[in-house]
Order: sequence, then C-alpha cells, then structure tokens
Amino acid sequence: MLEKESLVLMSRVRFARNLEAVPFPHMLDRERARDIVSKVEDAFYVSSAIKSDYTTHRMWDLGRTDILVGFEKHLVSAKLINNSDISAYILENREMVSLMVNEEDHIRLQCMQNGFGLRDIFKKADMLDDLLSERLTFAFDKNLGYITACPTNLGTAMRASVMVHLPGFTLADKVSHVAQALAQMGMTIRGIYGEGSQAEGNIYQISNEVTLGLSEEDILTNLESTILSILDEEQVNQMKLLGQYTSEIEDKVYRSLGILMNARVMASKEALYHLSMVRLGIELELLKDIELNIIDNLIISTQPGMMQKAYGIALTEKERDVNRAKIIRSIF
Amino acid sequence: MLEKESLVLMSRVRFARNLEAVPFPHMLDRERARDIVSKVEDAFYVSSAIKSDYTTHRMWDLGRTDILVGFEKHLVSAKLINNSDISAYILENREMVSLMVNEEDHIRLQCMQNGFGLRDIFKKADMLDDLLSERLTFAFDKNLGYITACPTNLGTAMRASVMVHLPGFTLADKVSHVAQALAQMGMTIRGIYGEGSQAEGNIYQISNEVTLGLSEEDILTNLESTILSILDEEQVNQMKLLGQYTSEIEDKVYRSLGILMNARVMASKEALYHLSMVRLGIELELLKDIELNIIDNLIISTQPGMMQKAYGIALTEKERDVNRAKIIRSIF
Repeated sequence: MLEKESLVLMSRVRFARNLEAVPFPHMLDRERARDIVSKVEDAFYVSSAIKSDYTTHRMWDLGRTDILVGFEKHLVSAKLINNSDISAYILENREMVSLMVNEEDHIRLQCMQNGFGLRDIFKKADMLDDLLSERLTFAFDKNLGYITACPTNLGTAMRASVMVHLPGFTLADKVSHVAQALAQMGMTIRGIYGEGSQAEGNIYQISNEVTLGLSEEDILTNLESTILSILDEEQVNQMKLLGQYTSEIEDKVYRSLGILMNARVMASKEALYHLSMVRLGIELELLKDIELNIIDNLIISTQPGMMQKAYGIALTEKERDVNRAKIIRSIF
Repeated sequence: MLEKESLVLMSRVRFARNLEAVPFPHMLDRERARDIVSKVEDAFYVSSAIKSDYTTHRMWDLGRTDILVGFEKHLVSAKLINNSDISAYILENREMVSLMVNEEDHIRLQCMQNGFGLRDIFKKADMLDDLLSERLTFAFDKNLGYITACPTNLGTAMRASVMVHLPGFTLADKVSHVAQALAQMGMTIRGIYGEGSQAEGNIYQISNEVTLGLSEEDILTNLESTILSILDEEQVNQMKLLGQYTSEIEDKVYRSLGILMNARVMASKEALYHLSMVRLGIELELLKDIELNIIDNLIISTQPGMMQKAYGIALTEKERDVNRAKIIRSIF
C-alpha cells in the first residue's frame, strides 16, 4: 500500500479580499466593475518577473470552451463564469495561481499544488496577498476580520481545501459518516467540482467551512490533522475491502484497466469511474507500473471542456467520446 | 471480413435407431434396458481399431461432473441424463462420435465436426450405421422409414444441425424473422444447448425439423443451402452494423477483449457474451492475431461443468468464476 498522502490529488488555498469603500461586485455597474479589474492589475503586475509569469484573461473576451476548460482545471469558479460580463482572472503560466476578479468578492486569490501541501501554498498565497496589499487597501474590521460579500467568509476569509480519492469510504458506503463528523468540526466534504457537484470517480474536496474566530494557522492545523486521520481511515477501509473481497476488488481494478486500454467510445463519467478504480489499484499496489500523476492528469484532461479545447467545439458528444477513448488508450 | 463459413462453430448429424421387436427405452425395465447396452456394444466393437478408438461410459457409473461435462460438449443429451439408470454412451477418443444408448430411442448415433462439414460427418454416420446394422436389425417400415419413439423423427430419423454465431442478426434484432422463415421450410433455430435453451453468446443451432418424406440427401442439400444463405445475410447484417455504428461495434469488441484479458472474476454467461464479441471482432477482421478455434474452445471449456471437471466439485460458484477468469487470461 502506498503512503497515505498519495490519496491526495491536489491542495488549494484561497483568500477572499475586497477593496475598502467599494461596493461588492454584484452592486457595481459594468464600468465600475471593469475598473476594479484594472486596479487589481495595476497593483499586481509590479515586477518584470510577475509580468512574464502571469496573464490576465478577461472573461468577456473568452469563448465558451476556454471558460469551461478553466472551470475543469479549477482555475475559475461557477460564480466567476456567472459574472462573465465584468469578471476576469490573472493566471500564472504554470496554472498553479489564479486571481479571480469580481467573483463574489473583488478578489479571490487561489494557489494550488498537486498532492498534499497546504503549508507551501498558504505561504505562496500569503506572499501574494502582501504584495497586493501594498497598493490596495482591503476592507478589514478588527473584530470581523476581512469583510466579504458573504458573511460565511468573514474572519480569515480563507478556504483551504484538499482533493482526495476515497474509494474505500465510497465502496463501504461511509462517506455520509465523514460528512457528519466534518460538519461538527467546522469542515465540509463536497464532490469534485465544489458545492452541489457529485463525487464522481470517488473524488472529494474537503475544506474548512468556518473562517471566523480562528487564525489561518489554526485552520490549517485542524484541517491537516483531520485529513490525515481521514486518509488513515481510508487506508483501513481499503485494506478491509481488499481482505474481504480480494478477487472482487482485483476484478474491478483490472477490468477498469482493460476497458481504459481497449474502449473505443467513452463518456467522461465512465472515464472518471475507471480512472478511479485504476487509481485504487495503484494505491493498493496491485498495479505497479502506472504512475499516479498519469491518472490524475487524465482525470482532468478527459473532462468535456478539455476535450472540446483539444478537438474543437464542432465535435458532437459522440465524437468527443471517441476521442476521449483514443486519448486514454494512447496514454496506457 | 472472413469467409462466411467461419461463422460456423460446429456441424452435427445424428441418426435415431431402434431394435426391431424391442419396446422403446421408456417401456423397458432396468434389466432389459441394460441388456440393450450390451447388445449395442457387441454389435459395435467388432474390430481392434474400434476397440482402441472408442470407450463405453455407463451413465449409472458416472459422477455428476462427468455427466455435465458430456452435456456441455454435446456428447450426451438431457434425455440421456434423465435415463441415467439405464443409459450409456460409446464415445470416440477424439470425442467427435458418440453412440447414445437408451436415450429416447435405443440408439442415437451422433457425429460432429468443428466448422461447416455436414457431408463428411453424414458419411461417417452412415458408415457406422451400416456397421451396426450388420449385427442388429433396426425397426423399419417401408412407408414410415425408421421407427422412432417420437413420431416427429419417423422417416430418415436424421437430424443434421449446425452451430452458428449470429451476432449480426442478434444485434439487429432479426432472429425471430429467421426463425419464422426456417419454420416454413421445415427447419428450426434453437439456443446453444438445444430445445428450450437460450441463445447465449449469440450462438444458435439450426437444424432440420422434418424427417419424413425427404431423403437424407434432400435434407442435407436443403439445410446446407439455407444455412449458406443465412450466413450471407449474417455478413450483410454485420457489415451494416459496422458501417452504421463503427465505433460502437469496435467499442464492444475491444472492451470485451480488454475484459477477458483482465477480469479476475467471471460467470459463464458473461464469458460467453465477451467471447462472442471477440469472435465478432475476428469475423470482421478488426482483431487479426486471435484464432477462431481459441475462442470456440473457450466457449466450451469455460462452461460450468468443464470448470468443475478441471477444478473439482468442491469449488464454490465464486471460486469457479475466479478460475474461469484465470483460464481465460492465460489463453489471451
């Protein structure tokens, strides 16, 4: 069995910030809102290093496919898309940092990293926050902390989240227990694409829900230790399943591998399911010649928007399913 | 596309014969019935060649597994099994000829051959029938022909049948049309294990139904030409399906191959389905490195009784499913 941290696909930290004495985005007319985008750019692009590493994408200039791809890569949120007429995002070329402007708040600064690494990305986000606050004054109250459009984000206005693969909990039908326990600790578990989305491919996001009354340090410490204990329990679940249903688990893993290697037509949901089963096989060390990051990249690159981006929007859904199967075969 | 004859898995011819002035098996007590077995043996084992090529299996001496294996190999019929207390079969070592004694009739002589070859096996059966009639007098009427326990077999008392793979008809949902047309020509189409059995794996048996008023030659000529035209139509069906649903057909074929190569647990029905899809892939020349006889052997050797024979009856159904998957993987 691999080390438990291998169950983590991605870590993310985001800060919500608002400009002092400026109404929240939903209260702004188009001109004032777009002016915020310029203000943030002025405050951010202060060095030649930043200028060469980052690019601004104005949502009102982007096509549907680019927007969908940004969403699937977790670079833009559903709310940023809803605000497309006034919103933008500044994206690092490595796509590990994005600054969304005029989402629910004026600024949503997000840093991501593959695998389990909340501390590193918190440092990165903190540094960029310091940079921005040199030229922008953020709405802040000494009792309430950072002022945000939605009161649930008051305080640190920080959400730290980790994307985890929990096939053991899912197959043992225990995800609802985790959800209850997390809720009591001010944390939450969601599907792969955030609130309201389903946990396709047994992939979940676990994040802090409470932002007020705790320091960033407290939030990170609590979340890290909680996730580590969930990962321990996931490994116990996996070992129990493997012990009790050895051939059934092996069967699921190898069939999924056989189907991924051979199918000629595959919808994105089905791809996610089989990729999850193969990931489980790697986690359990049944499959030893496949690297986890190959699976994790396919989980993202076989999503509908990524397929449209790669093959053009003129493709029918069926043609995308054919090309998806082709991409997957070419990787294995 | 392979030649149409490749759609035929097996050809069989069987003659029903009854001893003159002896009641049919269901009217005999045990002693008289078992005496028939000895009489047939005396008439049959007349040369040292026959003695070395054939063995008698008395059903009352056989275990359940051996009986089931004989059934799955089409060497014994359900009725022979029902009569186990009085029935026997004389089997050629190559298992291409079997003489069932005390089935519905005193003698059921059956010759089989892989692939399409009704003429050759008819000659073989005819020769063995001549051999038997040198020492046995068969019940025969100049108007009714050979007298049989069931009047539907009167006349030639011959049934010729061909086991064919018809995935094109099945996927196009046209098997019932074939059945209707065959009925009008005095022929019939059945599932893989005869009357009342299902057409698992898209495998069917087509045989003459009418035995009275036609010569053996007529029956064989009609059946051959009818089957060849069904095989032509099957190829048209396959090409149409492939033309119209190219990626779906390829997907079915390759997924089945991937599953057969990777599954760790497989029930016999599922194995038949995937073997049928892979056979279709070979027929359509999508798969070029797999020989048809490998598939046809697996279709027989993965049946439940064959699995019991190979691994012992102590295995649970699940253990058999695990071993079946293992055998299939070892072949591919």
